[in-house]
Amino acid sequence: MKVYGTSVSGNCYKVKLLLHVLKKPYEWIEINIRNGETKTQEFLVKNPVGKVPVLELDSGEFLSESNAILYFLANGTSFFPNELLIQSRILQWMFFEQYSHEPYIAVNRSLIRLQNKKDDPRISANLPKGLDALRIMDDHLAKNGFFGSEEPSIADISLFAYTHVAEEGHFPLNDFPNIISWIKRVKEIPDFIPIY
Amino acid sequence: MKVYGTSVSGNCYKVKLLLHVLKKPYEWIEINIRNGETKTQEFLVKNPVGKVPVLELDSGEFLSESNAILYFLANGTSFFPNELLIQSRILQWMFFEQYSHEPYIAVNRSLIRLQNKKDDPRISANLPKGLDALRIMDDHLAKNGFFGSEEPSIADISLFAYTHVAEEGHFPLNDFPNIISWIKRVKEIPDFIPIY
Repeated sequence: MKVYGTSVSGNCYKVKLLLHVLKKPYEWIEINIRNGETKTQEFLVKNPVGKVPVLELDSGEFLSESNAILYFLANGTSFFPNELLIQSRILQWMFFEQYSHEPYIAVNRSLIRLQNKKDDPRISANLPKGLDALRIMDDHLAKNGFFGSEEPSIADISLFAYTHVAEEGHFPLNDFPNIISWIKRVKEIPDFIPIY
Repeated sequence: MKVYGTSVSGNCYKVKLLLHVLKKPYEWIEINIRNGETKTQEFLVKNPVGKVPVLELDSGEFLSESNAILYFLANGTSFFPNELLIQSRILQWMFFEQYSHEPYIAVNRSLIRLQNKKDDPRISANLPKGLDALRIMDDHLAKNGFFGSEEPSIADISLFAYTHVAEEGHFPLNDFPNIISWIKRVKEIPDFIPIY
C-alpha cells in the first residue's frame, strides 16, 4: 500500500495517523504541492481532482479524499464500529469536518503558516466560521469523550488533524477547554504519531 | 421517520429522492431557513450546526449532514453495495460533492435564484471552480455510467441534487454532454421524484 501525500497537510496526516494506530505497513511518497506535482498528467491519473492524499492499493487501484480513505482503512476495526447509527454519526462528523471546519481552520493555517499571506482578507472572513466549528465541537465534548462513538473513531482522526494545529491559523484553542482535553485523549491512543 | 427540510434545498432533496426510490415512508416537516427556523434553540437541539436536512428516527434520535443521512438510509440496499472498495469510492465522490462541488455550484444557484444577489462577487469567483467540478464529473462519465458503482448509488443521488439544477446558477450544462446523459439515466430510476 502506498500513500501519496504532503507531510505538512492535515488531510494527509489523517491517513498516516490512522495507518500508524492500526499498525498497517505502508510506503509514503512525498508530493510537493507548491511546485505543481499534483497537477501533472501522471498525478491526475491517480486523482483527477489533483489533490493529496491518494491511496494506492496493492492491486494498483487508487482512492482519494482523505475521509473516504479513512473509511476504507478503518472498516472492520474499532475505529469504525459495526453499528449503523454509530457509523452514520461518525460520517456525520466527517462531513462536518470537510464542509464546516476544514475550509476555515485549515485554510487560515495554510495562509498564515504555509503561504505567509498574513494580510489575506480571507483570514478575517474565515475566523468567525472557524470559531463556530470549534464551539460546536467543544459543546459536543462537554458531554462526550469522542466524536460519533464512545471510543476513538475515524471521526476523531479526521477532526484532530487540523484542530490540534488550529493555533497555527491563530484560532485560540485555550478558549475551548473540552477540545484541549480531547486533544490529550487522542494523543494517548496507542501508536499515536505527531504531525511533525 | 421524520425529515426536517427545505423543499428548495438540494441537500434536502437528496434525502427525499432516496426515500422515494427506496419506497420508505416518511413525514416531511418544512423548515423556513430565511426566517431563522434552523437557528432556534428548539432546532439546535436537533442539529447544533443549525442546518437542514435533519433525520429524526422513530427512537427520537437525530442525524444530520445530508450525505451521512444517505449512508444511513441506503445501507443494505443496491444504492450502497456491500463491497468495501465500491463503498469507499461512493464516499469519495460524496466528499468531493461536499468539498469541491456544492460550495460553488449550490452557492451560485442560491445567490442567483434564491437570494436574488446577481451581482455578488462570489458568483464570478465560484464559476471556474464549479466548472472544474463539472469537468471532472463529465470526464468520469465518459467511461462510466454512474459514480462509484456500475449501478446508481448514493454518490449519484448526492451529485445529482445540485448538478441537475446547475443552470439556475448559470453553469452551462450543455457544455458537458456526458453529464446531460447521466441526468437522464438518474431520472429513469424507478420512483424518481423531481426537486420541484
